[in-house]
Amino acid sequence: MERIIKVGLLGLGTVGSGVLRILEINSEEVTRRAGAKAEIKKILVRDLEKKRSVPVDAKLLTTDPWEVIRDPEIEVIIELIGGTVAARSYVEESLRAKKYVITANKDMMALAGGELLSLAKEAGRNIYYEASVGGGIPLIRPLKHSLGANKIISLMGIINGTTNYILTRMSLEKMDFQTALQEAQEKGFAEQDPSSDLDGKDAAYKLCILAGLAFNSPIRYNDIHVEGIRGIGQRDIFYAEELGFILKLLAIGDELEGGLALRVHPTLIPSTHPLAGVLDENNALYLVGNAVGEVMFYGPGAGSMPTGSSVVADLIDVIRNINHQVENGIMEMDFREKKIVPVEMLSSAFYLRLQAHDQPGVFAGLANAFADEAVSLDRIIQKRSEAGRAEIVLVTHVVEERSFNRALEKIKEFPAIEKINSLFRVIES
Amino acid sequence: MERIIKVGLLGLGTVGSGVLRILEINSEEVTRRAGAKAEIKKILVRDLEKKRSVPVDAKLLTTDPWEVIRDPEIEVIIELIGGTVAARSYVEESLRAKKYVITANKDMMALAGGELLSLAKEAGRNIYYEASVGGGIPLIRPLKHSLGANKIISLMGIINGTTNYILTRMSLEKMDFQTALQEAQEKGFAEQDPSSDLDGKDAAYKLCILAGLAFNSPIRYNDIHVEGIRGIGQRDIFYAEELGFILKLLAIGDELEGGLALRVHPTLIPSTHPLAGVLDENNALYLVGNAVGEVMFYGPGAGSMPTGSSVVADLIDVIRNINHQVENGIMEMDFREKKIVPVEMLSSAFYLRLQAHDQPGVFAGLANAFADEAVSLDRIIQKRSEAGRAEIVLVTHVVEERSFNRALEKIKEFPAIEKINSLFRVIES
Repeated sequence: MERIIKVGLLGLGTVGSGVLRILEINSEEVTRRAGAKAEIKKILVRDLEKKRSVPVDAKLLTTDPWEVIRDPEIEVIIELIGGTVAARSYVEESLRAKKYVITANKDMMALAGGELLSLAKEAGRNIYYEASVGGGIPLIRPLKHSLGANKIISLMGIINGTTNYILTRMSLEKMDFQTALQEAQEKGFAEQDPSSDLDGKDAAYKLCILAGLAFNSPIRYNDIHVEGIRGIGQRDIFYAEELGFILKLLAIGDELEGGLALRVHPTLIPSTHPLAGVLDENNALYLVGNAVGEVMFYGPGAGSMPTGSSVVADLIDVIRNINHQVENGIMEMDFREKKIVPVEMLSSAFYLRLQAHDQPGVFAGLANAFADEAVSLDRIIQKRSEAGRAEIVLVTHVVEERSFNRALEKIKEFPAIEKINSLFRVIES
Repeated sequence: MERIIKVGLLGLGTVGSGVLRILEINSEEVTRRAGAKAEIKKILVRDLEKKRSVPVDAKLLTTDPWEVIRDPEIEVIIELIGGTVAARSYVEESLRAKKYVITANKDMMALAGGELLSLAKEAGRNIYYEASVGGGIPLIRPLKHSLGANKIISLMGIINGTTNYILTRMSLEKMDFQTALQEAQEKGFAEQDPSSDLDGKDAAYKLCILAGLAFNSPIRYNDIHVEGIRGIGQRDIFYAEELGFILKLLAIGDELEGGLALRVHPTLIPSTHPLAGVLDENNALYLVGNAVGEVMFYGPGAGSMPTGSSVVADLIDVIRNINHQVENGIMEMDFREKKIVPVEMLSSAFYLRLQAHDQPGVFAGLANAFADEAVSLDRIIQKRSEAGRAEIVLVTHVVEERSFNRALEKIKEFPAIEKINSLFRVIES
């Protein structure tokens, strides 16, 4: 007789609805691959009366989390309520009650993943969180398993769909930032309060999780240097493309001799780079391993069905493990603390757009300021001398951030320099 | 005390050397992730005296396969000799001797994977074959696990590095086919006898494995319609790009209402398609799942270290399983036979390049022949009227292959048509 595994669902929003729908339309595949049937026994919701986008038996719904978590028949808890406080206490209680946990909660895993996984280990259970980063794209499992033979040297990810959508629209449709943001909001790719996305926080939380797995080290949010995409001008996109680059908000991690370098910032990458073709709300993670070389994983970084796909993949794994009465260990327990290299100590090429009075000697002043700090210039565009004002775009060769910043401080004080419009790091290859 | 798992290696060529090197340079990572140390105890080689590219203790080498396979201490056999006859008998014997098997052998897995996996099941063991397709790119594990919540609707892969290298050189460097092939051979991206790659056979073997997992159905080589890249002209690449397409050798699988459609052939894809940017010897697999939508996996499709990376990833999994005394089942055992739809029954857009006498009425004749079979034309280029000869390039809308073929038969009989130069299928989006 076929075994049935009872599952409790916390939250029935976008992702929860996707999970229910997948369990319905792909029921046969899921059951076959899992080797047992998953039955959603109880669902925590905020509002019992709310109209749902998927058909759901009203008898399953409850507003009491403990009714789900403390149900002795339920072996797996899927946490999809988001946030860090309530979600964390539910997950802790679920683990103490010896339940497996599946979650799509990046904030919680970024902030408390280590503690929660320790608790899981004590309980002889595990936490699965494929859906917490990259929506439907398999990222966690490849990092933990498929690339396990590698030292990861470098990772670069487009892991925030909102900002990638905005930058793509600015590039392809020549929109300005505000118009692109508004369109993203209208299409549901940006929240009404888009701060966490625009300011790079969402990407930084995800980078905590990915870099932790890639470099086998616990990463804290504050280990990451974070810059967002506000203030990027249509002109920057235009100049970047003229120079052969595409502007992307990247989450980057490198293991250097001195430690880990972790940052989220707008970055110019060559238009031939595999990440350059990642458009709209899509996400991708590009990795360099010391054995495999360069690999990339691409796909939808959010959405009901894609994220649901990752949750149900985790559920299949959990059920196989329950069914075979195994839990073959928590890899994250072997993390070792590594040093963090502050961003000032890193080296990078830079793109700089500034506005100057169009008068003799301005350029010589700039060039000297850079030369004094041994910053050499790779490419220069000067255009649009309008009303006595010149717009100058520079790309430097690779320099230490500190040297570049010192040159920049000097330049800011030149009377002929009116404004530093924008400043981005550049990855040349 | 740390447990040591003894491993036998069959073959010490390109991939075997990569495996040894990875176990050396990433020894700490591999041991930590596996939870036990892997020790290569014996290595089958053809020639004991041959100079090796990696340092290896001569005492480990043997020319007797049975000395490796029948060693009772060895728990894992890594088969890297290739071919189907000896390799298969070694794998069978290893499974009967209750050893786990890891292999990079696509031919063997394509031709005998089903039987071998059955044997593994009887033995309570398993066969791991991540390295058999896509070199270092994780493909097997994502298909089996990460995308397990999906019905895969469609897959398209660039899974032969040799042909992708040749087509990339023809496109970027404007080389002709012969020059590009020669360069590929000089750089080690093509064999001295490149037939299996050029004729699409290598890609078809790999498609057997991928489509089997994607569609949960046993696939035989003969289920696949196979065309290679010989005879592709530099001009075809040029015209394709003028029309906004890139020419790639694709392995394609679709699950249609009537069954599975499986083919390997040169294909024009839009230059904005994620596969279009996969250059040189790189490989990629693009998948559409009914839950996740579109995902792509990209990376090096061959090579000593990349393929070694996949072998060692499998080894880590095997060791974890041995260490936790579990084997949580063979997913491939649930394959169900599905119908195959012959290529004639499929629909596609077509690209056709032909040479005609430059005389009145030729074009009308062509247009009528297509119209008679309800083939409608999407784009037309006519150029290079030289010495009374016109070169005509047509792209049709999507039509049934049968209709297109009937129109083509008529066209071939027109006295004004000198030659059909080339014919490719086109994927519009």
